[in-house]
Amino acid sequence: MGMTMTQKILAKHAGLDFVREGQLIEVNLDLVLGNDITTPVAINEFNKFAIDKVFDKEKIAIVPDHFTPNKDIKAAEQCKFTRQFVLSKNIKNYFEIGQMGIEHCLIPEKGLAVAGDVIIGADSHTCTYGALGVFSTGIGSTDMAAGMATGKCWFKVPKAIKFTLKNKPSKWVSGKDIILHIIGMIGVDGALYKSMEFVGDGIKNLSMDDRFTMSNMAIEAGGKNGIFPVDEKTIEYLKEHTNREWVSYEADKDAIYEKEYEIDLSKIRPTVAFPHLPDNTRTIDEVGDIEIDQVVIGSCTNGRISDLRAARDILKGHKVHERVRCIVFPGTQKIYLQAIEEGIVTDLIEAGAVFSTPTCGPCLGGHMGILAKGERAISTTNRNFVGRMGHVESEVYLASPAVAAASAIKGKIYNPELI
Amino acid sequence: MGMTMTQKILAKHAGLDFVREGQLIEVNLDLVLGNDITTPVAINEFNKFAIDKVFDKEKIAIVPDHFTPNKDIKAAEQCKFTRQFVLSKNIKNYFEIGQMGIEHCLIPEKGLAVAGDVIIGADSHTCTYGALGVFSTGIGSTDMAAGMATGKCWFKVPKAIKFTLKNKPSKWVSGKDIILHIIGMIGVDGALYKSMEFVGDGIKNLSMDDRFTMSNMAIEAGGKNGIFPVDEKTIEYLKEHTNREWVSYEADKDAIYEKEYEIDLSKIRPTVAFPHLPDNTRTIDEVGDIEIDQVVIGSCTNGRISDLRAARDILKGHKVHERVRCIVFPGTQKIYLQAIEEGIVTDLIEAGAVFSTPTCGPCLGGHMGILAKGERAISTTNRNFVGRMGHVESEVYLASPAVAAASAIKGKIYNPELI
Repeated sequence: MGMTMTQKILAKHAGLDFVREGQLIEVNLDLVLGNDITTPVAINEFNKFAIDKVFDKEKIAIVPDHFTPNKDIKAAEQCKFTRQFVLSKNIKNYFEIGQMGIEHCLIPEKGLAVAGDVIIGADSHTCTYGALGVFSTGIGSTDMAAGMATGKCWFKVPKAIKFTLKNKPSKWVSGKDIILHIIGMIGVDGALYKSMEFVGDGIKNLSMDDRFTMSNMAIEAGGKNGIFPVDEKTIEYLKEHTNREWVSYEADKDAIYEKEYEIDLSKIRPTVAFPHLPDNTRTIDEVGDIEIDQVVIGSCTNGRISDLRAARDILKGHKVHERVRCIVFPGTQKIYLQAIEEGIVTDLIEAGAVFSTPTCGPCLGGHMGILAKGERAISTTNRNFVGRMGHVESEVYLASPAVAAASAIKGKIYNPELI
Repeated sequence: MGMTMTQKILAKHAGLDFVREGQLIEVNLDLVLGNDITTPVAINEFNKFAIDKVFDKEKIAIVPDHFTPNKDIKAAEQCKFTRQFVLSKNIKNYFEIGQMGIEHCLIPEKGLAVAGDVIIGADSHTCTYGALGVFSTGIGSTDMAAGMATGKCWFKVPKAIKFTLKNKPSKWVSGKDIILHIIGMIGVDGALYKSMEFVGDGIKNLSMDDRFTMSNMAIEAGGKNGIFPVDEKTIEYLKEHTNREWVSYEADKDAIYEKEYEIDLSKIRPTVAFPHLPDNTRTIDEVGDIEIDQVVIGSCTNGRISDLRAARDILKGHKVHERVRCIVFPGTQKIYLQAIEEGIVTDLIEAGAVFSTPTCGPCLGGHMGILAKGERAISTTNRNFVGRMGHVESEVYLASPAVAAASAIKGKIYNPELI
């Protein structure tokens, strides 16, 4: 009996030759991550341990990205408290606004996540780094505190679901459409506490940005993690972003999967998740007439350069509909600079979009684009729960940057293929 | 006995040949302005009049700039309420985020303020347009409501103070330093309900952006308005931004001024207003060691292209101090595009600054850069009252973009001449 890719990474980090699903293990952590919402809670827990030092000041990353630049006095106090802890513990990977980005865009860009790593983060979308062959998962602030203190975390070894991806998606079908399709297929608890392992020839047709988006949303199917094998594109990405050594793990041929799915990427259509769950999906051909008030393009799910390029390719030469606020958030300062260099920021502003500094913004109802009662947004973010972006009677529709951009032009949810 | 420039504009708009200080007059308005905070209040008042129409749908401008992109649900509801009024009254000059900017940067840019106009705005810094030879002043939401209904407003004709500007300021002395110097000299009530009339040969050495900054802060000396004569630079600006006809008024030679000051611009030093009033000024040579946590560059006072250029000229090739958050807000989308084209946004981001979409942001404690207890900001905004930018125990120091940028590099209030 063999191990899945996830199980092999976990076994290695537990100092074991073999682990099986359901086994409780303690693993060594390569990185412990927190943001401006979760870190203050973790600090309060950490302080209860009555120890002076963190386990490794190079292996903790803290990114104040959720309510920054400081939304209000409470946010300012949270950031100040976090900053004081960072200084007192001499934590190296602290990214103040200005040097920052949205945590899950920033961490890979800074070379802090490499294939074979085990990373925990006090943020549910920490699973993003699975795109790079990392085992990464979201944990609570208490586990973050323990992780900062000990460099270790307990896990129950997850079962796995195998998704074999075949063929090539059509032009306006991106990683976002694929993962929405999958979540629609298996449901928001379809992968509960399981690894989503993506394999197959179709992966070579997915950019790294597509893969980040897909791993990012593994949690929206309940997944413990969502992981891709390491291929040429992964290696190219790693070489560009880090000098650290990485390890490429492959699932054993006789690994056990609870379920297996085969996905023909060429058959996937642009896909939209209707309120109020990510699995409430319809293809673009089935959406009907849904007028919108706001478009959000960005977030840890879709704030990367490919995402901004797609939005630009659709919006350039058009105008955002007069009834619509179109707000774009680059994932990091580096992505912002790249977008300026490629003329994307200019094209988007000329089309009538807002181009913000990196922040999580309205994704979680934070700031910079909150919805009033009865308003509707189409958004490239990852969650459309009741009240997620503002008033409990507002609605969020999840989609790709291309669908979001096409909708910005038309003032209703619209197919980018028809722009 | 003659009239001041302000009195001549008011007389003309009242249909009178002559007005004297203290006289109560009713004037015809060329523009009535509101933002997302004041317009909802004005709408509630307007609705009490039980009339269907506004006086002129072309002569009202509404700019949601303060808590936008929507900071929270309350801000979203305010904007929604305002938007519905705009649609129902068919108000033409409504600038949604994406087409927008900070109101006092946007209105002149859109050609909605031209020399000789009378403009009221439910925002205290409406006096900004005095730079273009406009009589403009801040009023309350009730007067805004009456203005939208009738196109008229009552005024008591103000007395005037004459400021004769001579010579040329040195390189890093801008309109901001000059107006802070003046406010420091006469005090925050030094021009209470009076016109501040700027004249003299020195004006030709001030850019339009310098003049906007100076008129903008007239209210910080208590001034009813702050007005400049129309010269070649004014005409060049007007030609670039509008096709509307303008009227250039000049004060009579025998106009009555309550006080007269002569200001030698060549002697003014970079100037900083210490907490907690704009008249608590010191020259840069007298500031001592004041460590800062945050730098804000932007606002209706200093968010124009010259301001961003000054910040860039200082910051390019340097790094924002690691302890400092440096947040830059362009005044309008047009200024944002210009700043991209000139490489300013790239230079500022590379230096470690945040470059936001246009918004009033933290200037009035709104969002996007609020201060925690005990934190200090140096800011190019216009007010440094207790708690203005966040916690009641935070501090705001007012300065020019050049001083703010130099301070961002050094982590303490610093002289741009020494960078």
